[in-house]
Amino acid sequence: MQIIITGGAGFLGARLARTLLAQGSLSLAGAAARPIERITLVDRAAPPADLTADARIKAITGDLNDQLSAQADATPWREADAIFHLAAAVSGECEADFDLGMRSNFAATHALLERVRALNTRPVLVFASSLAVFGDSPEQPLPKVIEDHTLPTPQTSYGIQKFIGEQLVADFTRKGFVRGRSVRLMTVSVRPGKPNGAASGFFSGMIREPLAGLRAACPVPDETPVAVASPARTIEGIIRAAEASDAQWGPRTALNLPSLPTTVGEMAAALERVAGKAATALLDRTPDPAIMRIVKTWPGRIETARAKALGLAADDSFEAVIREYVRENPDAVKLPGVA
Amino acid sequence: MQIIITGGAGFLGARLARTLLAQGSLSLAGAAARPIERITLVDRAAPPADLTADARIKAITGDLNDQLSAQADATPWREADAIFHLAAAVSGECEADFDLGMRSNFAATHALLERVRALNTRPVLVFASSLAVFGDSPEQPLPKVIEDHTLPTPQTSYGIQKFIGEQLVADFTRKGFVRGRSVRLMTVSVRPGKPNGAASGFFSGMIREPLAGLRAACPVPDETPVAVASPARTIEGIIRAAEASDAQWGPRTALNLPSLPTTVGEMAAALERVAGKAATALLDRTPDPAIMRIVKTWPGRIETARAKALGLAADDSFEAVIREYVRENPDAVKLPGVA
Repeated sequence: MQIIITGGAGFLGARLARTLLAQGSLSLAGAAARPIERITLVDRAAPPADLTADARIKAITGDLNDQLSAQADATPWREADAIFHLAAAVSGECEADFDLGMRSNFAATHALLERVRALNTRPVLVFASSLAVFGDSPEQPLPKVIEDHTLPTPQTSYGIQKFIGEQLVADFTRKGFVRGRSVRLMTVSVRPGKPNGAASGFFSGMIREPLAGLRAACPVPDETPVAVASPARTIEGIIRAAEASDAQWGPRTALNLPSLPTTVGEMAAALERVAGKAATALLDRTPDPAIMRIVKTWPGRIETARAKALGLAADDSFEAVIREYVRENPDAVKLPGVA
Repeated sequence: MQIIITGGAGFLGARLARTLLAQGSLSLAGAAARPIERITLVDRAAPPADLTADARIKAITGDLNDQLSAQADATPWREADAIFHLAAAVSGECEADFDLGMRSNFAATHALLERVRALNTRPVLVFASSLAVFGDSPEQPLPKVIEDHTLPTPQTSYGIQKFIGEQLVADFTRKGFVRGRSVRLMTVSVRPGKPNGAASGFFSGMIREPLAGLRAACPVPDETPVAVASPARTIEGIIRAAEASDAQWGPRTALNLPSLPTTVGEMAAALERVAGKAATALLDRTPDPAIMRIVKTWPGRIETARAKALGLAADDSFEAVIREYVRENPDAVKLPGVA
């Protein structure tokens, strides 16, 4: 089996690759599991060294739109049994640079679908959409609880572009050009590594940086609701989307992945339980209106009946999520007394 | 005031132009009404002679995508205070020819939005979407009654393309590039003239052709539900979308226009009341699976609270709709005894 991961050098893409390599095989759309022979990581950046050390990993470094052009080598796309389309410009970037978002999220997703359609290979395609398709606004308040059939009313360009991607995936799937599944990722926390341009970045930074002994911005009020999922739960959902049979998957509407409903204040309290007052003392509570404007439109509470029926579950508690991060990233934890 | 109507030589576009010329002025987004100096009709076909005879009408004949290209003259787009974007490939065509639909409905709408964005003129833009964004399927049954916040799950490429157009209009509006309003048109009946490639075409043909003394296909069962609106009610809704202030308009989500819930059987019965058994005897009740497949996914009953609040109403009865058609199109009514 050959697999492509776009955005494969990013945090989620690399973690997905590691998980797939570790399991060694994959079931696609209800079929029997087959050994994974190759995972091609398409990304602007080079993948981490642990991945390139694996003989099954191939890296294509460059702009995704370029890689999907008629001039580029079609071989990896032609040979792919499954494509995980994770490459995207993030929310904050897209709000600041409209054209960047349209190119990276809208045009690239369309080009990817047209590429595989032209090859007539009907791969399984998992499209990483986002809870950012849901947006609250004074003119159109979100319902208190988001359900599987709630109408998305995105309030960011990123959300609109992801929602359009879902529609394209649905119709290319209905037409039989691809076997597409769209999953809406929740706010992933705790992300290791460096901050990115996502408006949601601080949801990881406010945990990761204090654990590293560094100051961190916490730019929104304590009561700000957030629907979080750990990296492990997120990867679980992405893989399950590829594995589920058509009957298990159900409608072509994008699937909300499970999330833990919490608040910024509860996250800070969990951090204090894990790492003490020394950790929360490192949080800078200076409000950032630009981030607040985006984040406050996102829903905090999402009922995910479809995901549950697929056997997917949310994290137990945010404290458990932090402890998982500490376990997985010992070198990134520098604050004294955190085990 | 300068106005552009894309698809301006089509039935709805031409009727919209006639209505605007007759009223002579237009209020845009709550501002005071201003005299209409020019209406530019952009269409592949030439407009009807009664329109070109009016000095305020200008016709641009050609492909819309070409007219929106960087090579084409930008003057009409630059001067437009309002754009009514009605040009589209219809449902049946888009289902048969995927690329045609993507070019005519998806790419053209995107190009139009980028064109006006580049000109930085912020025109009012009314985008004609469709009830075809709603689609019933075994995996995802539609609710019995569609409401303003019902999640569209399109089951045709046409529906997907219109729904994507709505999203683009919403985000270009949120960003301040255009003052967009999307209205979802219902099944327009009775359309005069020749049949087009719309799967919904027979909803007009089954009335129009018998009144002309011609046989007509009625390819779906009597109990098939349909949400119809007369041409007059449809144009009313399109104009109201341009006129309403931002506060009246409300959210950027597309607005379902009012419709009369009826069935094919009730439509035939109304035809018989207006034109006698001689009319219904001209209906060929041979099922057409291709049309049935598309039409049966559309909803029949739609609650339109937002449209009502804007002062818009559905037709009183389908019999009244037929009588309106007879009054407006005396030359097309050839069956003896119909007044």
